[in-house]
Amino acid sequence: MNYTKITGGVTAAKGFLAGGVHVGVKSSNKSKKDVCIIVSTSLAAVGGVFTQNKFAAAPVEWCRQVVAGGVAKAIVANSGCANACTGALGLTNAETMADLAAVKLGAKKEQILVASTGVIGHQLPMEKIQAGITKAAESLSESGGSQAAEAIMTTDTYAKESALQYEYEGNIITIGGIAKGSGMIHPNMATMFAFITTDAAIEPACLQKAVKAAADKSFNMVTVDQDTSTNDTMLVLANGQAKNKAIKTEDQAYQVFLDALTAVAIELAKMIAHDGEGATKFLEVQVQGAKTETAARLAAKAVVSSTLVKAAFFGEDANWGRIICAVGNSEAELDPEKVDIWLESKGGKEKMMASGASLVFDEAKTAEILKERDIKVLINMNDGPGAATAWGCDLSYDYVKINADYRT
Amino acid sequence: MNYTKITGGVTAAKGFLAGGVHVGVKSSNKSKKDVCIIVSTSLAAVGGVFTQNKFAAAPVEWCRQVVAGGVAKAIVANSGCANACTGALGLTNAETMADLAAVKLGAKKEQILVASTGVIGHQLPMEKIQAGITKAAESLSESGGSQAAEAIMTTDTYAKESALQYEYEGNIITIGGIAKGSGMIHPNMATMFAFITTDAAIEPACLQKAVKAAADKSFNMVTVDQDTSTNDTMLVLANGQAKNKAIKTEDQAYQVFLDALTAVAIELAKMIAHDGEGATKFLEVQVQGAKTETAARLAAKAVVSSTLVKAAFFGEDANWGRIICAVGNSEAELDPEKVDIWLESKGGKEKMMASGASLVFDEAKTAEILKERDIKVLINMNDGPGAATAWGCDLSYDYVKINADYRT
Repeated sequence: MNYTKITGGVTAAKGFLAGGVHVGVKSSNKSKKDVCIIVSTSLAAVGGVFTQNKFAAAPVEWCRQVVAGGVAKAIVANSGCANACTGALGLTNAETMADLAAVKLGAKKEQILVASTGVIGHQLPMEKIQAGITKAAESLSESGGSQAAEAIMTTDTYAKESALQYEYEGNIITIGGIAKGSGMIHPNMATMFAFITTDAAIEPACLQKAVKAAADKSFNMVTVDQDTSTNDTMLVLANGQAKNKAIKTEDQAYQVFLDALTAVAIELAKMIAHDGEGATKFLEVQVQGAKTETAARLAAKAVVSSTLVKAAFFGEDANWGRIICAVGNSEAELDPEKVDIWLESKGGKEKMMASGASLVFDEAKTAEILKERDIKVLINMNDGPGAATAWGCDLSYDYVKINADYRT
Repeated sequence: MNYTKITGGVTAAKGFLAGGVHVGVKSSNKSKKDVCIIVSTSLAAVGGVFTQNKFAAAPVEWCRQVVAGGVAKAIVANSGCANACTGALGLTNAETMADLAAVKLGAKKEQILVASTGVIGHQLPMEKIQAGITKAAESLSESGGSQAAEAIMTTDTYAKESALQYEYEGNIITIGGIAKGSGMIHPNMATMFAFITTDAAIEPACLQKAVKAAADKSFNMVTVDQDTSTNDTMLVLANGQAKNKAIKTEDQAYQVFLDALTAVAIELAKMIAHDGEGATKFLEVQVQGAKTETAARLAAKAVVSSTLVKAAFFGEDANWGRIICAVGNSEAELDPEKVDIWLESKGGKEKMMASGASLVFDEAKTAEILKERDIKVLINMNDGPGAATAWGCDLSYDYVKINADYRT
């Protein structure tokens, strides 16, 4: 299937409007937007996946109910306050956010998804939130995707947008989205969000399956550190305005849609890793030849999550021993005596380990590989058909600096 | 049971000699010892636990065989080279180390335990190792415990020794040991070692049970980062020279011995956390009221392992949200609405969270608490009898620095 990459992010697909505004939840700096709305002009099917953290934030609890209903009209989100660990008042505030947006959009509150990101343990400043919802509703436009992308940023250094189109049986289907943060496994109590919209027609149950499958190959394979926030949220709205024959089963049309959704999700996920806090290197770990896909996923994530591996890449140190150590610590089933490892970048490719034992490698060539910002770790377990890719970044002084004094 | 803390470390117990020497495996700096031997004057029962990493190093494979035999005479160890990922030659070299020591000590090689720590993927420099074993055997003495403690250091900033005595049914029993590195969950491919000796008489099967139980409450509850080395090793030799009635079942005598062994192991484990790479804070996380001990262990380890929690303590930031987030990410079964959290140090004690929701806390008082080097996180799940304690350290700029250029 050929995709055409397009601009427009979360408002690229037909029938979606968005707006993002500054009201001072996050900061008094007026250039920093902090409330946004993304709305479909017609009721949409909705799918979502959320944090597995046992202390799920109030907006996550609210969204779980909305997603269970299968349809939604809009997403309202804020940055600056996560509305997490906020007890009964937090739940009320999340519902009130939905209600305020519903009134402005002429919808029911049960059709409004809510997302909050920022410091946890603080109650939402509801007057500011109300003002933000009013302003955002007034600013809605077909080109508002970028504003929404800005409004959900916390420690992100750039807004993250992606969109593509593909043709299937004569219909042009568009999928686009925005994201923030640094992975379901995330950096800063600041949460990962991904909001994706599409004009594809797809039944809610099928959409939910696709969202779960796309998340598993994208956001669930990104790590900056190893913590999962109370607020991590991925939402997909599908309003059917592309007029394709509605996808109702896991047929070819579903598979094509899933591949396209996964492509958008992977692009957003890679942007999150690229923008990891303090990152100086972007790491891609490809595992092949694992006994199962699960084993490949476990091994790839273990390598990209290891603080020792991450610190070694920051130091441009070819410490393959830490890579193999991380593989060996993962729960991936494997035969240690079959594992091969390479490092690769624009600077070249060098084999570090064959059949589980170290190789004498070219230090000068390896130094050239490690100088690059984008580096791949290739692992072949030579033991089966399982493959997976994970993305992450290095561990730098700046990561420590950013995270040592975030709250204060 | 009252213990008397004593000096002497791994040679405190009757019938143990040790020696440590410099031969240049680790460095040309002659003050850095790198080969040591610890020997019992009579054949001893042996127990051991080892890394769970699938790429276990050659000396670990060798030790597993010796421990399975139930008796041993000595431990020979080196720092500077881990003999890991070294293939068939690595296994041969580990066996040769045992054989060389056996010849010097008049024992069988199957009675000699071997341990190596340092860079992985390099073959042992066997001429230096041979010279080291010869020199160490010549330097054996009843006061050699400190030399052995020095010889196993890698990035450790001080040698780690502990010993105690207790009286049971008229016999004085002594337990003492040395350790290095930073946790079974360790920092630097540099491995955690703990070598403990005792003159207690205990059957090998009972000793093995005690070693496992003591490790679970000590070294397995320490973390500096989240990687487990290829070489992590805890060994206990018990030579029976205290002349107590041999411990053969899990009776009262066993329980008293286990408590004392655990006390030595915890003291060594805490030294490892105190000396964590780049650490500026020592963290103790006490979980109470968990549904089970397992839940308590999972939660305590999750908090002390979280890079976000660790970075916050480095910044002296009362970011209790990260603590609760780490608890929520652990696999510990819990009821989020019952969890209470305090911070405590010599500077005071302050409650941060009650019944799963944030509290307004005294920022000035909390700043006083966080200024201290030793800080406790107290978590009560109010949900059962399970309790556990984990130890660790903060994440500092120096951790990144130390680990960014270890190999080169």
